[in-house]
Amino acid sequence: MIAVHLERGQASIRRRSRPRRPVGFALIRLVCAGICNTDLELQRGYHNFSGTPGHEFVGEVVTADTPRLLGRRVVGEINLACGKCAWCERGLGRHCPGHKVLGIVRQPGVFAEYFVLPECNLHPVPDSIPSECAVFVEPLAAACEILDQVCIPRGAPAAVLGDGKLGLLVAQVLQLHGAEVHLYGHHQERMRLAEAAGIRTALPPAKPRAIYEWVVEATGSPDGLQLATRMARPRSTIVMKSTIHVPVTLDSAYLIVNEITLVGSRCGRFKPALRLLQDGKVHVSEMISARVPLAEAPRAFDLARAKGSLKVLLIPDGPADERG
Amino acid sequence: MIAVHLERGQASIRRRSRPRRPVGFALIRLVCAGICNTDLELQRGYHNFSGTPGHEFVGEVVTADTPRLLGRRVVGEINLACGKCAWCERGLGRHCPGHKVLGIVRQPGVFAEYFVLPECNLHPVPDSIPSECAVFVEPLAAACEILDQVCIPRGAPAAVLGDGKLGLLVAQVLQLHGAEVHLYGHHQERMRLAEAAGIRTALPPAKPRAIYEWVVEATGSPDGLQLATRMARPRSTIVMKSTIHVPVTLDSAYLIVNEITLVGSRCGRFKPALRLLQDGKVHVSEMISARVPLAEAPRAFDLARAKGSLKVLLIPDGPADERG
Repeated sequence: MIAVHLERGQASIRRRSRPRRPVGFALIRLVCAGICNTDLELQRGYHNFSGTPGHEFVGEVVTADTPRLLGRRVVGEINLACGKCAWCERGLGRHCPGHKVLGIVRQPGVFAEYFVLPECNLHPVPDSIPSECAVFVEPLAAACEILDQVCIPRGAPAAVLGDGKLGLLVAQVLQLHGAEVHLYGHHQERMRLAEAAGIRTALPPAKPRAIYEWVVEATGSPDGLQLATRMARPRSTIVMKSTIHVPVTLDSAYLIVNEITLVGSRCGRFKPALRLLQDGKVHVSEMISARVPLAEAPRAFDLARAKGSLKVLLIPDGPADERG
Repeated sequence: MIAVHLERGQASIRRRSRPRRPVGFALIRLVCAGICNTDLELQRGYHNFSGTPGHEFVGEVVTADTPRLLGRRVVGEINLACGKCAWCERGLGRHCPGHKVLGIVRQPGVFAEYFVLPECNLHPVPDSIPSECAVFVEPLAAACEILDQVCIPRGAPAAVLGDGKLGLLVAQVLQLHGAEVHLYGHHQERMRLAEAAGIRTALPPAKPRAIYEWVVEATGSPDGLQLATRMARPRSTIVMKSTIHVPVTLDSAYLIVNEITLVGSRCGRFKPALRLLQDGKVHVSEMISARVPLAEAPRAFDLARAKGSLKVLLIPDGPADERG
């Protein structure tokens, strides 16, 4: 089979043997994968990464312990946890000590024709969700995670900073939740996607005013948190979503004097995200910038990094079958 | 009367006329004042401060609209609010837009023989609390504020970083609340004060482990927040107490991946603090490093800044009467 290999900033295609399936794991054939900003960060050297990246996928189960999974189209949670510790018992396996992360930490990723993942990580995809939509479940779950962490009252004005993939998903999730979302971004075309969902959009303010009780920072920029701080009113909450791998500078005195709360927010549960996709409530297919054959993954990485690009999909054997 | 004057890094003594009392205000004679780290920051140029600092005080009401206040020994909340807006209605006048802050923002402070403050800011001091203890009510209220913001379960291990004045107060307040407090500091002598209250103490770890669900950062150092981050386990809460007026560098990706919450925490309500002092439950008098006559305030500022110093008190007409 072929697999993408990242090493020292270079993406290449390598021939590999199909992975062996450990007990409790499923062997999965890739149907469709998405390139995430984290993959681009891995390429830049985050985690000293070397190997096969990729964690956003739709696949088809080839072999598994559990018969009902065979042949099923699945998505999968990306954290591989022990299933036994106190974190796992709380349903928070993503914070299990020593957990692996698919395509990020000590677990080969999905940018390959075949890969393995524990069966307990898998969720069958309802037939009504096309693969090109289901592949958004992981970032959509990360957007939904916010609502598992903080209690935003319906009708509350909430600022979302950043009109990238995650910002657009967060804006839609919070709007569906009932918040009055204001999306701040730089790209007219992307903002139009949000506007179609009834979301108010604007350029980031040159002179920010401290008016929001809820701010989500999803700019992907080291300056985003400082802007978020200036837009947050006293006693407000800023949700941090930009996993940037450079130190961020903060005016902590301002946060203290105004008693602002910062909440780090990462992966989320797949269930609410699948439900949103099934109900057709979140617009994701409009966010696809390109479909690239897996064998041309290096070009796909270039496309994903290009200015204005949103989601780039990798599809084995070319994208033709998946377009419909 | 005499008053301390801060300007361009210099503390000096000036002769001034007694302040005029606006309607709704009390004219107060200073009994005892405390020098806070914020006063030292003001001296360093924070807020471009120029004028009379001071916000920790015990005073005696000389004139007031309300007869029952006359002659009463009082302490006073430091934020001067409108009393009418939504913040004030929620009892959060300290976040009222345009509020003044005693001795810090647009309201002359208490390092003077006489000063004025709104009557609604005042709390009579119970006779059982000596003035040298009551003067700690403001920083003690700031320590108590943590328990108004976050819900620390009884028995939960909580790390307090910093053995300065605020760290020692926070450690005691959390210990009384029922947390299992571990105080991390550098000064054996100060740590002994905490140990006397049954608190475990240690040097800050060279190799921090992410084990605490609750961490309070009160080091007063720009590096404190980074240490706090490394000691905080996934999904934990860090309370930020160090109002340092330099930008602080943060590993935001670490906070996001581990879904850590940061809570800015400032002033608190005086009532719970007065109750703790009245019950004799918090040890404060041991934290007094020096008593200096108000007329020698510049020397008191030097003492307060000296290594190892804790609370320096300013006392009009010399400290003799107050030593009792």
